[in-house]
Amino acid sequence: MHSLKRILIFCALALGAIVWASPAVWTARGASGADEGPVHGLDPFVLLSIALMLLVAKLGGELFAKLKQPAVLGELIGGILVGSLSLFGVASVESLRTDAVIAALAELGVITLLFEVGLETNLREMAEVGWSSLLVATLGVVVPFFLGWGVAVLFIPGGPTLTHIFIGATLCATSVGITARVLKDLGWLQAREARIILGAAVIDDVLGLLVLAVVAGAIKATAAGEALALASVGLIALKSLAFLAGAVLLGQFVVPHLFRGAGRLESRGVMVAFAIAFCFLLAWAAARLGLAPIVGAFAAGMMLDEIHFEAFVRRGERTLTELLAPVSALLVPIFFVLMGLKVDLRVFGQLSVLGFALALTAAAVFGKQVCSLGVLERGVNRLAVGLGMIPRGEVGLIFAGIGATLLLPNEQGASVPVVGAETFGAIVIMVVVTTLVTPPVLKWSLQRTARKSKTAASAEVSE
Amino acid sequence: MHSLKRILIFCALALGAIVWASPAVWTARGASGADEGPVHGLDPFVLLSIALMLLVAKLGGELFAKLKQPAVLGELIGGILVGSLSLFGVASVESLRTDAVIAALAELGVITLLFEVGLETNLREMAEVGWSSLLVATLGVVVPFFLGWGVAVLFIPGGPTLTHIFIGATLCATSVGITARVLKDLGWLQAREARIILGAAVIDDVLGLLVLAVVAGAIKATAAGEALALASVGLIALKSLAFLAGAVLLGQFVVPHLFRGAGRLESRGVMVAFAIAFCFLLAWAAARLGLAPIVGAFAAGMMLDEIHFEAFVRRGERTLTELLAPVSALLVPIFFVLMGLKVDLRVFGQLSVLGFALALTAAAVFGKQVCSLGVLERGVNRLAVGLGMIPRGEVGLIFAGIGATLLLPNEQGASVPVVGAETFGAIVIMVVVTTLVTPPVLKWSLQRTARKSKTAASAEVSE
Repeated sequence: MHSLKRILIFCALALGAIVWASPAVWTARGASGADEGPVHGLDPFVLLSIALMLLVAKLGGELFAKLKQPAVLGELIGGILVGSLSLFGVASVESLRTDAVIAALAELGVITLLFEVGLETNLREMAEVGWSSLLVATLGVVVPFFLGWGVAVLFIPGGPTLTHIFIGATLCATSVGITARVLKDLGWLQAREARIILGAAVIDDVLGLLVLAVVAGAIKATAAGEALALASVGLIALKSLAFLAGAVLLGQFVVPHLFRGAGRLESRGVMVAFAIAFCFLLAWAAARLGLAPIVGAFAAGMMLDEIHFEAFVRRGERTLTELLAPVSALLVPIFFVLMGLKVDLRVFGQLSVLGFALALTAAAVFGKQVCSLGVLERGVNRLAVGLGMIPRGEVGLIFAGIGATLLLPNEQGASVPVVGAETFGAIVIMVVVTTLVTPPVLKWSLQRTARKSKTAASAEVSE
Repeated sequence: MHSLKRILIFCALALGAIVWASPAVWTARGASGADEGPVHGLDPFVLLSIALMLLVAKLGGELFAKLKQPAVLGELIGGILVGSLSLFGVASVESLRTDAVIAALAELGVITLLFEVGLETNLREMAEVGWSSLLVATLGVVVPFFLGWGVAVLFIPGGPTLTHIFIGATLCATSVGITARVLKDLGWLQAREARIILGAAVIDDVLGLLVLAVVAGAIKATAAGEALALASVGLIALKSLAFLAGAVLLGQFVVPHLFRGAGRLESRGVMVAFAIAFCFLLAWAAARLGLAPIVGAFAAGMMLDEIHFEAFVRRGERTLTELLAPVSALLVPIFFVLMGLKVDLRVFGQLSVLGFALALTAAAVFGKQVCSLGVLERGVNRLAVGLGMIPRGEVGLIFAGIGATLLLPNEQGASVPVVGAETFGAIVIMVVVTTLVTPPVLKWSLQRTARKSKTAASAEVSE
């Protein structure tokens, strides 16, 4: 330690001497402006913001993980808390909310997240869970959609019909990430209930994204003042389907060869770079077709399978899921913290928002309970299936975020966002509550089944 | 396969039916505008750009790796080739060059890279290599600096002195990444020559960054029309030193506790998120002090040691270096491809640029050969040390990139960038040549030593 200190002091002195002796000192002509800003072009504010957002996200996530809740909730609530600083006059929070680079990083984050979720599933899995999942998913999209629409009509009586429909759409998609995470944490991923839930969650994700594409397309057309031709809405639906069908065909017949070919490449990081490039390419293609980029990212993930990366893994590289984890650990929290940041805490003080949030939450929870009627198999814990479909999580927030960027003319003819501050607050409360409520009730319901089937199993054995 | 196809067709039909039946179709009022743009806020152009840059980087990198050259060269040349498309009228290349989000990602990339390079080294290693490294590094900074200055005076006779000095500064820093990579590829990391080279490369990186801070500060002050007080240049140097000394103290006494505390956190991705947050925080602090953010990133990397992450690794997580690899695989190529993109190929057609590039390259190569005089130990292959110091790589490019963003008044009083298109082209050629030339000559020189020491070793054994 002593010699290290001496060496450090020496280094410092030597560096100092060299800098002092450096010719720049003798010839340069003015340097007092050095305090004013960075030497580099990037606004250092972005660096500080990212660092703080990551710290908030991870501390919040850790806290909620310790409370046996999904980490995503902690990130969200952390963001809400940071955002609330603006109520106390911290002005830089406002510039954080509107920074273009942070917004872009957040969007790349959500694209990465949907890519990861897509990776967790594949077509074969979707096909295996079959009819029950499809029926559960369909009920789970249709019923909450109409309930949400009704709630919106009730609470925004003067609003445009498209706004009501959009709010209904935000209730459609189950958060496959949160559901899967809860099932995994409980060690239930291989149970029949879990497979039905996951299959249905995947299908209603896709359905939800299709509904989003249609509704958002209709909103954009209305905002542009164009009359709706039924044919053009059909065109959006057709394009969505063509995109997904094209993705399916590509995934079956082209992608395996493509990535097996890429498997011959050996330079560092080639696998993760190619996978991300593929994801971004499909996200771009989806955007070009008028769909949300996340639809493309999800499709890209569904197309890719660890099998395509055999060549990489065989020579000792990590699997794609492992490689993507650090990228998503960097980018995804930025999305959720930013989403939290955008929640205006003042709306929570308004009784109407709380009522709206409560009604939306009820619609979200009870709408999904109808799902259980879609379970065809006997001996399945139907309650658990319905409960497992409750969490809305990231997809609901993504919808809300998109809604906040879409504009519609109101009754006075002025352009207002489809999802205003109040609605956004209500949706966030709905997401928080549905996400928070699921882990404990799902755990309770599944453990009841476990006890029953244990009894049944021991009965079978004793027979 | 057959049943899978049927299921796919069924799924497509079912999705179609649901979308067609979705209430949005019956109530929405116009959708023909859906083609015009993305539903999401992010410009899809950014997604396409990132995807293409990654593909270009990895294919170029792979090609050069196959040719036993550093992958960074391939990324650079890939970028140059894509950039040359603008000569054939591809206008979108121009918007790629100036896109703010791409530029921000590139800067985050170079910050991540310097963080990684910093991680590869630590203070103890720097202290161990001792006097030889320090002397080699000092000579390796001072001699190329003056040679480069001289070359700049020769080729830009009318330019401001600060421009000449800046060009000298771009020749200072050895690319520790490329050197380490070459030594690693050859299996020579533990040799005495390798240690001296690495130690010296680290020190002259720090020296180079200090020189950059001083020169850039002086340029900014001049641009602001302020007179140079020697004291204020001293202030920059002092701030740099204070920053590095503070970083050293922090690294010795605070960081270990901090990260050991963080080791108790268990949620997913917490380690890599904290490390990146730490890196960005120091980059921000450096920027606030008027230094380049990369100085902070490098210091952050040097402060962190795998030892601080013991708690994470013990419970089966990857090491920080492994976790950072995918992040850098995503961000770093964006920097190098963008650097390549910014090379205006037309400058290569001008004889004066080629002459300038040739002279700069000669200054860079021969300037570093003087280094070998700094080796105090006997029996060391001095030629190999000199050769190992040749590559400039990323640091030279970073300097050039910063130079392109700094403005100085020319003789007519107008503001011109310190590093103009011609100088940038010349520096890029210098970087390409020094990086390209090192692997083969270093390999040749080290293998000569290997043969000699093998003979010596067998002689010792026979004694």
